[in-house]
Amino acid sequence: MRRAVFALPAVLASFAALGDPGMWTFHDFPSELVKQEHGVVIDKAWLDRVRTATLRLSNCTASFVSPDGLILTNHHCSESCLDEHATAAQPLLRDGFLARTRAQELRCGTQVADVLIGMEDVTARVEAAIRGLDDQTANSTRKKTLTMLEQACEDESRRAGTPALKCESVTLYQGGQYWLYKYHRYDDVRLVFAPERAIAAFGGDPDNFQFPRWCLDLSLLRAYGPDGQPAHTPSFLTLRPAGPEAGEVVFVAGHPGHTDRLLTVAQLLELRDVFLPRWLLRAAELRGRLIEFRKTGAEASRIAEDPLNGLENALKVRRRQLDALLDERLLAAKRAAETALREKVAADPGLAAATGDPWREIARAEGVQRELDLPYTWIELGAGFNSALFNYARTLVRGAAERAKPNTERLREYRDTALPRVAQRLRAPIPVYPQLEKLTLSFSLERMREWLGPDAPIVRSLLARDSPDTLAARLVDGSQLADPALRRQLWEGGAAAVDASHDPMIELARAIDPQARALRKRYEDEVEAPIDAAAEKIARARFKVYGTSEPPDATFTLRLNVGTVQGWKEGSVTVEPFTHTARLFERATSEDPFRIPDSWLAVKSQLDPATRFNLASSNDIIGGNSGSPLIDARGRVVGLMFDGNIHAISGDYWYDAELNRAVAVDPAIIFEALRKVYRATELLAEMGTK
Amino acid sequence: MRRAVFALPAVLASFAALGDPGMWTFHDFPSELVKQEHGVVIDKAWLDRVRTATLRLSNCTASFVSPDGLILTNHHCSESCLDEHATAAQPLLRDGFLARTRAQELRCGTQVADVLIGMEDVTARVEAAIRGLDDQTANSTRKKTLTMLEQACEDESRRAGTPALKCESVTLYQGGQYWLYKYHRYDDVRLVFAPERAIAAFGGDPDNFQFPRWCLDLSLLRAYGPDGQPAHTPSFLTLRPAGPEAGEVVFVAGHPGHTDRLLTVAQLLELRDVFLPRWLLRAAELRGRLIEFRKTGAEASRIAEDPLNGLENALKVRRRQLDALLDERLLAAKRAAETALREKVAADPGLAAATGDPWREIARAEGVQRELDLPYTWIELGAGFNSALFNYARTLVRGAAERAKPNTERLREYRDTALPRVAQRLRAPIPVYPQLEKLTLSFSLERMREWLGPDAPIVRSLLARDSPDTLAARLVDGSQLADPALRRQLWEGGAAAVDASHDPMIELARAIDPQARALRKRYEDEVEAPIDAAAEKIARARFKVYGTSEPPDATFTLRLNVGTVQGWKEGSVTVEPFTHTARLFERATSEDPFRIPDSWLAVKSQLDPATRFNLASSNDIIGGNSGSPLIDARGRVVGLMFDGNIHAISGDYWYDAELNRAVAVDPAIIFEALRKVYRATELLAEMGTK
Repeated sequence: MRRAVFALPAVLASFAALGDPGMWTFHDFPSELVKQEHGVVIDKAWLDRVRTATLRLSNCTASFVSPDGLILTNHHCSESCLDEHATAAQPLLRDGFLARTRAQELRCGTQVADVLIGMEDVTARVEAAIRGLDDQTANSTRKKTLTMLEQACEDESRRAGTPALKCESVTLYQGGQYWLYKYHRYDDVRLVFAPERAIAAFGGDPDNFQFPRWCLDLSLLRAYGPDGQPAHTPSFLTLRPAGPEAGEVVFVAGHPGHTDRLLTVAQLLELRDVFLPRWLLRAAELRGRLIEFRKTGAEASRIAEDPLNGLENALKVRRRQLDALLDERLLAAKRAAETALREKVAADPGLAAATGDPWREIARAEGVQRELDLPYTWIELGAGFNSALFNYARTLVRGAAERAKPNTERLREYRDTALPRVAQRLRAPIPVYPQLEKLTLSFSLERMREWLGPDAPIVRSLLARDSPDTLAARLVDGSQLADPALRRQLWEGGAAAVDASHDPMIELARAIDPQARALRKRYEDEVEAPIDAAAEKIARARFKVYGTSEPPDATFTLRLNVGTVQGWKEGSVTVEPFTHTARLFERATSEDPFRIPDSWLAVKSQLDPATRFNLASSNDIIGGNSGSPLIDARGRVVGLMFDGNIHAISGDYWYDAELNRAVAVDPAIIFEALRKVYRATELLAEMGTK
Repeated sequence: MRRAVFALPAVLASFAALGDPGMWTFHDFPSELVKQEHGVVIDKAWLDRVRTATLRLSNCTASFVSPDGLILTNHHCSESCLDEHATAAQPLLRDGFLARTRAQELRCGTQVADVLIGMEDVTARVEAAIRGLDDQTANSTRKKTLTMLEQACEDESRRAGTPALKCESVTLYQGGQYWLYKYHRYDDVRLVFAPERAIAAFGGDPDNFQFPRWCLDLSLLRAYGPDGQPAHTPSFLTLRPAGPEAGEVVFVAGHPGHTDRLLTVAQLLELRDVFLPRWLLRAAELRGRLIEFRKTGAEASRIAEDPLNGLENALKVRRRQLDALLDERLLAAKRAAETALREKVAADPGLAAATGDPWREIARAEGVQRELDLPYTWIELGAGFNSALFNYARTLVRGAAERAKPNTERLREYRDTALPRVAQRLRAPIPVYPQLEKLTLSFSLERMREWLGPDAPIVRSLLARDSPDTLAARLVDGSQLADPALRRQLWEGGAAAVDASHDPMIELARAIDPQARALRKRYEDEVEAPIDAAAEKIARARFKVYGTSEPPDATFTLRLNVGTVQGWKEGSVTVEPFTHTARLFERATSEDPFRIPDSWLAVKSQLDPATRFNLASSNDIIGGNSGSPLIDARGRVVGLMFDGNIHAISGDYWYDAELNRAVAVDPAIIFEALRKVYRATELLAEMGTK
């Protein structure tokens, strides 16, 4: 199987031919291959329908499941929204939520739902713009070109009088292709239903990325139009109540966030040796601080739950990524694949001349990155200022400065097409908890002092008199930026308003901005520019040698992949692809995270112990695919993806067909729970079931 | 210098010839070489005097500095003792301590001070005992032989009527040599003086392993005889008040704890890839928990300080060890050295036949270690049961079972010669803080569940109903083992008393003991036995090829090394070897860890700003050397070692002559502080100064 094959460099060339499920784009889906291998016909109509029924949320994937904008996604994709509306008296994250009427549906302040309407290949235009330029100029010109293309696309859609589109550039194959993706955006998304977290994430962090599993990781949202009415969504998917069969061919449509399968060996080693260990050390300590903070009281426990859940998930992912990169099999395969490509390039004099040695250029740039890593991470990336208030302040300070410049001259995150989303986030009434702010800010200041050293100029200037605790308290207590009205006023007031502010967080963001920008400039010129230029050369060489027989790395854009419902062999143990309700109750304890909520215990006798709960399939998914529909050959939903098994985490770097499995909620338990536990009659009717 | 030289395998052969300071034993000190290179004569009288004036504490090194048993060591070596006697009303760790009379001196419950009296080479006897045995039998026979040799040595010293000696076996060169070291032990050690921690560890964790530095990391203890009177110690060192000159040749005598310079590449990779990342992740989270716990109140802050200090120090060491192993230079040098030795072995048919391929045997055993690592670490090594009460319980349970067996059949830590120390630790009145116990125990149970998985049998049996918090609280609140009288009674009562106990910690230790012992047995048979056998083969091959031109790895036994007072070049910056009082005051803030204590601020105007404070030298030291005397050619103390610079941490794996520096307290500031800040007139007089 795959593991053995990797020892043979020659065979590595064409992943797809070996049945790699692959995260394929909709404009380059290998329907022929799927037909040959699985006997399933995926035609344009199927692709169009699935594409327009699949949604990109800000953090996840989702799908329309009714013509009235009802959206199916994971519970964990709505945790922030639940948290946003929760209070000490109504801890929604813990207790769940069900809107009995549409009027009760709760708007999620920072959520959006995007439908991919069109895709345009702009590779030739980008390549023409940067041809012949040195790396640094090419890097800035590439960004300007993408900004102009996005802007022109949005302007055009507005002129055409159709609903205005969001146009986003997409870089595929590390610069081998550039695309414009055009979305219809719903920016009014409301919460309809979420179960208790105890059942949505039964098993908590210990069970995360494990299978067998028993999680109802489900929430329902609804898209609303600009008129404040539920959106009309004729393109939607229906659920197949009984779920799929073992061995059935199934598809996942969704937005996998990020993979690193096409990185060079030098880049993988940098992740293994520098990025991951440093990130893990920071995160592990913060986890400890949050856990201990939660023990100080009920309110502390409530407000720290969502950040802790997110952190623990990320920790597990990063830890297993490190394990994957320490796996000799993986690195040997990567080295072999790189050598094979380099040999093929060297064997073709024309190609060799056009390609040069981009691998060495990347390795050299990684050396610069290592040197820049600490100040860049702590100061520009903000690891030293872990605070929502600081993030608001930096956005206000930078946004004011950037908006005064021509669109193409700005930092990319402040280009015109990005501003509506920036403004939405700024004015969303997300609660800010001072205790939590002080914890994370003090932590990050203290660690910045440790990693940059007590005599680094920024550390001296911030902590010359104060301890991290004292400084964090003064900044958080002194700042008024928790007020969304003030943030909106500062945003709309632009540079004049921001310059006049004496809010201590604004002052901090302003004070460090020159140094932070200088670090960013160095990073872009000396790390990003040469790496992007070299990666484009590798991509072009790869196309020449292998064509597009491998899918591009994930980029949080729409992809489709094929797999079958199946378990795997864990050592000598065969893991079956389905779990059932019976074992949920056997496995429970009386305490979190293995506690079954009262609503389930109350109806336990009515629940069918044989109902399928979660399932495993061989689909190739990764973070960002959360909430994706699992779809049968006829386009019906047969599962709600919410996780992978522990081996799926190595999917960041390769797909291991023997071990990598995706994990979904079975439709059977969705209907059983909505019917018997939550008695959500209207929702069942809306989804076409009763 | 060293860094360039490492690229040339042939030159690697003889470290000593290149001036490696080396951690030499007193029985194999290269006096000739030192004479040639430094022009200093180190004769037998010098060695004997320094050896008998240098002490091994339980955790550090120290030296006698008066004929009445006065002991000079670091403040951080006495932190536990200060903590043991501290109360909320008298926080000794924070405020310091000075016994104005000998009656006020405070006994340190678990401290001992050992003087090395004799050294006997027993290599031939061990080799004879294990010759021809298979690895597993050799492993257990080796242990039995060492136990017998130690016992015979102690019996003989008792029969001779001299003060009874402690005899300990020492394995040098990974099994290339076996020695019996014979100590005179003082087991009544009392605290005489310690400054405030704010000045002892000025700069705290941020400055730890940094230089320039301003720490008075000093404490004074006193050895007492069995008669309860101060010990008579005619062999002592005097301090040279002005300290050393830049460039002066200086020596460090002490007990470096552990180095890994002779490990194979496979062993280093195991440290880099498995041991260090896992350890760091655990420790970083515990650090976060302790830091957050400290913020819950003054008492919490006090009781968590000492554990947190120890943890942060270890974290910094481990983190830099990982950095060192990720340094390509280091691994390339190690690979080259290993290849060079293997080629020399292969070139000599007789040697090749005798040696075989121990490198491959070690690599194979490391594979088994990796497989066993998680359960062995969490269950047998106790990472899952991080609690002082649990440690007492396990010692009582295992001690009762082991003492019922013949001496040579026991786990080595319960052999007769080790029992007095076990008993001393059990009956010492060390405070146990339930809050802290619950924190560390809950943390470790929770992580054990994460790493072994919620379905591992031990996890299911412990946490089937309870959360880690609940279980930890029940165990800690239910246990009576905080009472030293009870522990003594259970220890002296043996198996009958322990078996009759229903203390929940005893019950826990008893319940997991069969599984823990089974893991230990597998580890000893399948990891330790083949590695020790292979390491002996490598050691014999190394002696054959290179002789003993390299010093053995550190083993917390007495060593002597030579260096000079010097700074280094950090990039383009020259770091001078001395710091002075003036800069201490300039660098201070008003908050920990950069706060200067009131006692110093009160006399600031009387202090000479030009007084030398700390100094750097090229001596090769490592953890365990803390408290070591820095000695001039005439045998006078010219510094008190307390740290290395950040590069010194890589000294675990190699000595980098360009960068690795040791850091000491200068005698000038010791006398200045004792005179002007602490007015310790009697102590100054006892040390021969006024």
